[in-house]
Amino acid sequence: MEEDYSRWYLDIVKKADLMDYGPVKGTMIIKPYGYAIWENIQKDLDRRFKETGHENAYFPLLIPESYLQKEMNHVEGFAPEVAWVTQGGNEQLEERLVVRPTSETIICSMMSQWIQSYRDLPMKLNQWANVMRWEKSTKPFLRTSEFLWQEGHTAHATFEEAEEEALTMLDVYKSFVEEVLAMPVIKGRKTENEKFAGAVHTYSIEALMSDGKALQAGTSHHLGQNFSKVFEIQYSDKDNKLQYVHQTSWGVSTRLIGGLIMTHSDDRGLALPPKVAPIQVVIIPILRKDKEEVKNKAHQIKDQLSQLGIRVKVDDREEMTPGWKFNEYEMRGVPIRIELGPKDIEKEQFVLARRDTGEKEFLSLADLTKIIPAKLDEIQQNMFNKAEQFLKTHTFEANSIDEMKEQLLKEKGFIKSWWCGDITCLDKVKEETGATARNIPFDQREGQGKCICCGKESTTTVIFARAY
Amino acid sequence: MEEDYSRWYLDIVKKADLMDYGPVKGTMIIKPYGYAIWENIQKDLDRRFKETGHENAYFPLLIPESYLQKEMNHVEGFAPEVAWVTQGGNEQLEERLVVRPTSETIICSMMSQWIQSYRDLPMKLNQWANVMRWEKSTKPFLRTSEFLWQEGHTAHATFEEAEEEALTMLDVYKSFVEEVLAMPVIKGRKTENEKFAGAVHTYSIEALMSDGKALQAGTSHHLGQNFSKVFEIQYSDKDNKLQYVHQTSWGVSTRLIGGLIMTHSDDRGLALPPKVAPIQVVIIPILRKDKEEVKNKAHQIKDQLSQLGIRVKVDDREEMTPGWKFNEYEMRGVPIRIELGPKDIEKEQFVLARRDTGEKEFLSLADLTKIIPAKLDEIQQNMFNKAEQFLKTHTFEANSIDEMKEQLLKEKGFIKSWWCGDITCLDKVKEETGATARNIPFDQREGQGKCICCGKESTTTVIFARAY
Ligand SMILES: [Zn+2]
Ligand SMILES: [Zn+2]
Repeated sequence: MEEDYSRWYLDIVKKADLMDYGPVKGTMIIKPYGYAIWENIQKDLDRRFKETGHENAYFPLLIPESYLQKEMNHVEGFAPEVAWVTQGGNEQLEERLVVRPTSETIICSMMSQWIQSYRDLPMKLNQWANVMRWEKSTKPFLRTSEFLWQEGHTAHATFEEAEEEALTMLDVYKSFVEEVLAMPVIKGRKTENEKFAGAVHTYSIEALMSDGKALQAGTSHHLGQNFSKVFEIQYSDKDNKLQYVHQTSWGVSTRLIGGLIMTHSDDRGLALPPKVAPIQVVIIPILRKDKEEVKNKAHQIKDQLSQLGIRVKVDDREEMTPGWKFNEYEMRGVPIRIELGPKDIEKEQFVLARRDTGEKEFLSLADLTKIIPAKLDEIQQNMFNKAEQFLKTHTFEANSIDEMKEQLLKEKGFIKSWWCGDITCLDKVKEETGATARNIPFDQREGQGKCICCGKESTTTVIFARAY
Repeated sequence: MEEDYSRWYLDIVKKADLMDYGPVKGTMIIKPYGYAIWENIQKDLDRRFKETGHENAYFPLLIPESYLQKEMNHVEGFAPEVAWVTQGGNEQLEERLVVRPTSETIICSMMSQWIQSYRDLPMKLNQWANVMRWEKSTKPFLRTSEFLWQEGHTAHATFEEAEEEALTMLDVYKSFVEEVLAMPVIKGRKTENEKFAGAVHTYSIEALMSDGKALQAGTSHHLGQNFSKVFEIQYSDKDNKLQYVHQTSWGVSTRLIGGLIMTHSDDRGLALPPKVAPIQVVIIPILRKDKEEVKNKAHQIKDQLSQLGIRVKVDDREEMTPGWKFNEYEMRGVPIRIELGPKDIEKEQFVLARRDTGEKEFLSLADLTKIIPAKLDEIQQNMFNKAEQFLKTHTFEANSIDEMKEQLLKEKGFIKSWWCGDITCLDKVKEETGATARNIPFDQREGQGKCICCGKESTTTVIFARAY
């Protein structure tokens, strides 16, 4: 079952031509169709970051080993899984350099030079970059040794401001993932054992894949003064006293593309929400007779839709049959297919086929520019609703480890349980069920109940799941 | 003199807050203001690449040593200046990995898997990425061990198509650099000794900096079948015969920002052409009386201009004087400054100060939305004209090495000379004058003359210059 799903996933990423495997273990090439999805993600997120007052910058790829060593939790968290540069040109380097697994240490070292006064705060930076983690077991988009991401890094005068920033960015992620990727998520705080190495606490949004396993779709960390104390990022406040800044960092990555695939795809292949689809509408002229006329009409429709800002493509190749093309663009997840033959043109109509529902209908060409934008919105909304429905019907409750085991055998999903606050209870759940605490959802149940593991009366709800 | 210029340059990049130095020798941080310039460059170029039929993709950062070894000229060209990853996690790697200095080898190895038939051609890819060259001597933007760039990689069925592609992309670069960065350039072909390691030939655009030294602003390589033969990139043609593809690669980098600075800046600091300026218009309210009214009016003007798509900022901080701000935004190269005081509002006027000419004039607020776009166009054009005038008056002719030496002592610039075609003549010119052959310009002089070095009758013109 799990193997089937994995094979289905790998099949889709290859057949939809999203990626290929690189020569170094665990690396991948993001092919044009996959990269176009990432570009759409970037563009939309980047706008949201700028609207919330962030500026982009670029920090070096290579970080001296001594920087990584400074924050103890951080180095323990990352040292086992980094790539090391030890030679430059023909020389052996005196100090090893880390290929960044994340950029807290180098950005903090620079912030300590840039920040002097309260007037320099808040400092709100973001970086689009490649990062590398030397992973043992990898899977396209979900876990690769190199991946693309954005990492936000901010510094603030007070704990409260940093907390507000961390939560604001979690909201930005939630809105983006739900509105654009049509993936419903659960916001919450990570438990201590699952938080980022070096953070005071970590917030996350957790999505549910169609196999009932969870995917952490984005994280936002309140770093407190952990990094500012070791990197000496101090500012003089209005009373001229030196204070350490409070920091956050937050990121999402090409992993989102993996989440997108596992949320919406089906046995016919990929299905993309319109807002992130590289091709929103594909026009397939049926070329039997009057070929030139039909092709011309197809391109005319394309121009009409392009002018509305819709991403549209005509496939008028004659060496492939319409049937082959229908299959091809379904597999690639194109939200709307327009079919257009000589008879349709006669009747001033076209066929619209929806990728999400499989519905086909005849519509009037005269209404084209009204219909298509409305349909795209409808598809976007429908895909979100479907995923939300799935999440709701796959969120279960369990009051004991046995109940959880039973549920996971029957059907996987999110499992809400009471928890006493003791990490060893989480460890035991994980050991016995393979499920981990995804987060402590902001949306808590009222009342109280028995800890899923030790049975102690508890007031905290945790969402458990097996996870990617 | 040269030292003064270098100090002036370093002063500008720091004072305009474009960058800072990284901890690893030769690395830099691109700070938000510098990165915003790069974003504008990217956005415009990316549109041009897509319009000419290219798709973006992403290839891995780390390349196995054996890949680099395959093309002999290529490995000789790059091996001395690469960074090596030798350890992953706690393990010593069996094969060293190169941090990409450029991606020909890995892209070719993938193309050999992706290309089977003439139907797969042309394949026209581009990648936005970071690359690394272990440089001995570095300078912000102009030469850094890590830099950001784009690299185009294409494969074609015939030599002619590849040649056309290489020339098309050179034209794209020229149009972009002249229209957006306002830097006039000379198009031409690199001499054999200056071409890319592994190319059949290299085309370049060469710009002239305000100190009379040249800057290679972009290169486009016709790789021929050099890479396709070693990486076995073959396609079956229409007659079902196997053929090697013909390839190109082409790139521009963050180096363009260095060129931008050295083309337009002056003793008052940076000067940015409007099309690439992160802030096109800065509004400075003069806050003496009626502060709130003046601030409101400033923000109202901002909104008016923003709606036209103009990048505009209001600086209404009260802790800085207007004079301090004038100086600040001049130093940062903002093309237009609008000053607005209570008296101006009374008279329904504003002051417009141009960064390029230093001119100040009173203009009617009623005409604001007409005046500003027109002025921005005028400034863009004027900056190009000024730079073009400089290039023309700093393009000299020399008929002997002595004449060249004399000219370089008097005033540096491009030096046009006849050349016999013998590389040893170029070597000698370089040795004696420090000037290198920048390129063989497409715009050749008619007739013939004596080779600048050996005196042989020659029909080829070469542009020499000392270069960055
Ligand atoms: Zn417990
Ligand atoms: Zn000669």
